[in-house]
Amino acid sequence: MASVDFDLDEWSAAHLVQVEQALQRWIDPEAPAGLGQAMRYAALDGGKRLRPLLVLAASEAAGGNPQAGLRAACAVELIHAYSLVHDDMPCMDNDVLRRGKPTVHVQFGQAQALLAGDALQALAFELLAPDDGSVSANITARLCRLLARAAGYHGMAGGQAIDLASVGCALTQAQLQTMHRLKTGALLQASVMLGAACADLVENEHATTALAEYGAALGLAFQVVDDILDVTADSATLGKTAGKDVAHDKPTYVALLGLDPAQQYAQALLAQALRALDSSGLPDTRSLKALADKVVNREK
Amino acid sequence: MASVDFDLDEWSAAHLVQVEQALQRWIDPEAPAGLGQAMRYAALDGGKRLRPLLVLAASEAAGGNPQAGLRAACAVELIHAYSLVHDDMPCMDNDVLRRGKPTVHVQFGQAQALLAGDALQALAFELLAPDDGSVSANITARLCRLLARAAGYHGMAGGQAIDLASVGCALTQAQLQTMHRLKTGALLQASVMLGAACADLVENEHATTALAEYGAALGLAFQVVDDILDVTADSATLGKTAGKDVAHDKPTYVALLGLDPAQQYAQALLAQALRALDSSGLPDTRSLKALADKVVNREK
Repeated sequence: MASVDFDLDEWSAAHLVQVEQALQRWIDPEAPAGLGQAMRYAALDGGKRLRPLLVLAASEAAGGNPQAGLRAACAVELIHAYSLVHDDMPCMDNDVLRRGKPTVHVQFGQAQALLAGDALQALAFELLAPDDGSVSANITARLCRLLARAAGYHGMAGGQAIDLASVGCALTQAQLQTMHRLKTGALLQASVMLGAACADLVENEHATTALAEYGAALGLAFQVVDDILDVTADSATLGKTAGKDVAHDKPTYVALLGLDPAQQYAQALLAQALRALDSSGLPDTRSLKALADKVVNREK
Repeated sequence: MASVDFDLDEWSAAHLVQVEQALQRWIDPEAPAGLGQAMRYAALDGGKRLRPLLVLAASEAAGGNPQAGLRAACAVELIHAYSLVHDDMPCMDNDVLRRGKPTVHVQFGQAQALLAGDALQALAFELLAPDDGSVSANITARLCRLLARAAGYHGMAGGQAIDLASVGCALTQAQLQTMHRLKTGALLQASVMLGAACADLVENEHATTALAEYGAALGLAFQVVDDILDVTADSATLGKTAGKDVAHDKPTYVALLGLDPAQQYAQALLAQALRALDSSGLPDTRSLKALADKVVNREK
């Protein structure tokens, strides 16, 4: 799907180095009583970094402030990282393996894991509000608003609450969609909107709407593919426990639609995301297109 | 200590009504899957509301934007409320009683308590960044910076990590002071600075420094008095389990200094806080003075 003249791997590698270095610099290893170490364990060297890449791609497409883009990219990754730490805890999913490593509570104890998650969330907002003049107050205010909404009870945390309440329940497609729109979709869509908010696109309603549509379709596609991989991939490939949705009797798109229709649905969402970009009027959306393609056609 | 022409009870009652109504309005009971209810249980109708009162008193003393003041007051209370929810969980203090009611995890289960705490933190930042034009981007950016730092690993969360690591350890007064400066002091001092940040006092370095001194002394005094009350009051008066510091072998000012010297130390900190206000150059600091007096001479 991506244009032949765009190399996503090269683009991603260059941008991931920036994100990794920034996270290394911004998560202080000297934070009190081992807390900084637990936070670094949770957030460094791990994962696909899809959310920060979406922020950076959207910021570049919209002509955003690069400093703001990098901070927003790291902030959304910290929110994602904290949610995994808390999600893995015994009172939630009770997972012991994440990205091929022991989960944070296994490594550092539950109390430290709880605190590390809490502190990662606070740090995300701290990153958005530097006092060195590199990010304007207007941008900081927009980023803070978007991230807080996406992370909170009408976003990610709300989706997790629905997830908790839905174990063992038969959900309709509409209910499943609501859960995922909040649980994973809100932060993925917010990643795109955070990138856009680094520019003064706010005035350009047309482009903003198109990016929101792209982000919504991508967020949903991500979850559909996640559900597919939970049944088609093994733990070694995933770097986390495969088949756990089935084991936990969680509702999934595969359970609801069947495997083939779920795969067709993911492709339809990809097409929808790409159409939204084409209608955005933005001059260069190649990285955003390639990321959508990667999300839907990924193998882990 | 408070001027005879100032009635703190009357002032507090009027301001607490505003805070309570705003929290009622801003914590949506309809949030998904009972999450809003758990958040409201954690944050409404409870506690002394010292932090929001400090925000409002400082904002009024500094001539702040009242809408920003009310939002910052509620935000800091949400951070405080979330920290209590997580602190009470079995993997932390394992407390079953808070403000005379079952703690959130007892009432709603651990998973919901974890999520409610997480969502309360996100909501705090959401409150600081309204999109209705009532708070300028400059103020939002300053509030977000102050609150994130005070809540995070170089503030409250860092202090909790030290607290965790220090159970059963003999701390020096300097170490105990560092722990409390972070664990409770950072958020109390930030309450004062959040209020100041609602005005354009930033230019007035003298007043800002004086308010920071006041906030630091008050934050420390609060903890010294807390330690004193843990041994002198009973559970019914406190609305929480008395004597738990001793039971958990936690280091306290009373254990370190003895009861009488701890009481003298609290009075010295009060005098220091009041002197800072006198040197601030602000025209009316009566509510801040009366709050400091109340903190040190409180009975629960």
